[in-house]
Amino acid sequence: MARPEIKTLRVYLDTRSYDIVIGQNILTKPSLITPLIPTQQVCIVTNETIAPLYLQTICASLADKKIDCVILKDGEMYKNMASLRKIYDKLVSQNHRRDTTLIALGGGVIGDITGFAAATYQRGVSFIQIPTTLLAQVDASVGGKTAINHPQGKNLIGSIYQPKQVIIDIATLKTLHKRAYKAGMAEIIKYALLAGGKLYHQVEQALNAPINAQQLIDIIHACCAYKAHIIEQDEHESHIRALLNLGHTTAHALEAYTHYQRWLHGEAVAIGLHVAALISQELGFIDKTIVNNLVVLLKKAGLPVNIPRDIELAKLWSFIQKDKKAQHHSLRFILIKAIGHCYIETNMDEALVMLGLTKAVEGV
Amino acid sequence: MARPEIKTLRVYLDTRSYDIVIGQNILTKPSLITPLIPTQQVCIVTNETIAPLYLQTICASLADKKIDCVILKDGEMYKNMASLRKIYDKLVSQNHRRDTTLIALGGGVIGDITGFAAATYQRGVSFIQIPTTLLAQVDASVGGKTAINHPQGKNLIGSIYQPKQVIIDIATLKTLHKRAYKAGMAEIIKYALLAGGKLYHQVEQALNAPINAQQLIDIIHACCAYKAHIIEQDEHESHIRALLNLGHTTAHALEAYTHYQRWLHGEAVAIGLHVAALISQELGFIDKTIVNNLVVLLKKAGLPVNIPRDIELAKLWSFIQKDKKAQHHSLRFILIKAIGHCYIETNMDEALVMLGLTKAVEGV
Repeated sequence: MARPEIKTLRVYLDTRSYDIVIGQNILTKPSLITPLIPTQQVCIVTNETIAPLYLQTICASLADKKIDCVILKDGEMYKNMASLRKIYDKLVSQNHRRDTTLIALGGGVIGDITGFAAATYQRGVSFIQIPTTLLAQVDASVGGKTAINHPQGKNLIGSIYQPKQVIIDIATLKTLHKRAYKAGMAEIIKYALLAGGKLYHQVEQALNAPINAQQLIDIIHACCAYKAHIIEQDEHESHIRALLNLGHTTAHALEAYTHYQRWLHGEAVAIGLHVAALISQELGFIDKTIVNNLVVLLKKAGLPVNIPRDIELAKLWSFIQKDKKAQHHSLRFILIKAIGHCYIETNMDEALVMLGLTKAVEGV
Repeated sequence: MARPEIKTLRVYLDTRSYDIVIGQNILTKPSLITPLIPTQQVCIVTNETIAPLYLQTICASLADKKIDCVILKDGEMYKNMASLRKIYDKLVSQNHRRDTTLIALGGGVIGDITGFAAATYQRGVSFIQIPTTLLAQVDASVGGKTAINHPQGKNLIGSIYQPKQVIIDIATLKTLHKRAYKAGMAEIIKYALLAGGKLYHQVEQALNAPINAQQLIDIIHACCAYKAHIIEQDEHESHIRALLNLGHTTAHALEAYTHYQRWLHGEAVAIGLHVAALISQELGFIDKTIVNNLVVLLKKAGLPVNIPRDIELAKLWSFIQKDKKAQHHSLRFILIKAIGHCYIETNMDEALVMLGLTKAVEGV
């Protein structure tokens, strides 16, 4: 097969505009990364899982630079102040200047913490995202949300800070755990519901037959393009960026309920998408065929769609209420009017949400 | 005497534009602060020196709000990660949402750390600056520089984040230590050199005879207006914002040399202004009369102008070199072409700086 085409997408945000480059085996190309780094100083932040796989490749591409590395432990629980301090300490001890460049090599956790370090070291330095999980490639690495966790809540400390470039190499997905790959598919299905049309069709195809590299690149490109289109209009989530939370109200509640131990984020999102579809059906926006088709897609992707019977709905409900209290005075929920036409319901009927949750319970 | 006029100055930065309001006894006016706060949530950050003086006044102005307070210890050494965490913990434990408002009540340290907390809590919340020192009123509270210190260096962690409003009440200067007031005058004299014209004349007048409240308001207004004009063109210090560092290359070296113990920042700036003037004279830009006039102004303000004999110039020089290495590859220095016409020399002749330092030594 021919080497798949490299696709580039520009995110337009005034002086903070940047490119997302998507391809296969592109990390080995020094010509891609080197021109982005204006000085000799680079600091790569990665984790213990990713470092043995790709750190050497990146370093080889940056042969003429003075490279420092921070290798964090792998996992969400290390997205904290202590890891952040490790990055600062490395930068300070190695005399990194305001014109240095940070490289985030890893999944969402590495991207979030490295982006936040870049946003706050010397009041902002340049950073490049190299996402290595499907979830980070289609979602976390686009839009500039950076953060660390506070002991009392996820992503409570952070900022909106755009990278200088995002480099997505689908070759890194080969080493990704199957379960993590599937979880990434949940966000892709979310984008298919949001964008509809060609992307929905592409995703259906991708789940019905094995796909080649070019098809995967095209799908990732389409997801990033949809997200970029939203970010360009609402960088700071004042209004339509909330659309990207389709399926996430339920997902966040499920995750918090189970202390982030039971589901990967994408798995919880898959259940949340099903709940959103059930509520949308209840409201008469979409018919049963569409809901069933979504369930089929999610299942083909190897994702859960139902709330297990051992989850107490009253307790799950209390987490949704807590989220509501933390965010707004009324319950906000993303609903599906049609494939490719979702909207933000800012004053959601709470009984209807409870009904949707009930209908999503396993065996109902 | 009539109650002095309240002056308002708008800083134009697109969607981040804000007003600076300057007056006397204005903190007691609820009508000034309350409309800036959209929800019931407010968190005031202040220190142990300022809290007994003004916290009650501010709280009275916000009688209908749910007020939380964080009272930090007073001093530069508390502008650190531990204090920042105290602010985060208060916000999280009291369930402050993204639409909360932080109020910085104090000098530069409080403004810097509160601004940084606001920039990074839930990816950015609103904050109001109420600077209570002359230095913070004319300089630190304008321009959006926020930061905390790293054990290895000042202001290494921070961001550029603009307040929603700055409220300057000159009545707070009554309780300011004389020495701190004088240190603030050094930054005012810096602005007089930068802006020249009317401001230079006003500052000369202010130092030759007692000034009334209106005159002080006018001077603070003019300094803020000059700084705002610069910030509007270069928010992120890519080019002309560096002009505001007039006198600061020497000042930073003097401060680092003496571990920030011997001089207040403004005092070190006063010596630095003298050094900048001596170098500018050496280059033939300004004549001896202008240098002498500056020395007279600084002395009238009760500020030091000479480098004490016990300071080893070779060691002082090494701190300037360290600063150069941290910032750029060549030495950057702000020089005075004329009163009201300063410029950034990006490739400063190092021997000339040494000559300027030598000439500024006490008794030379």
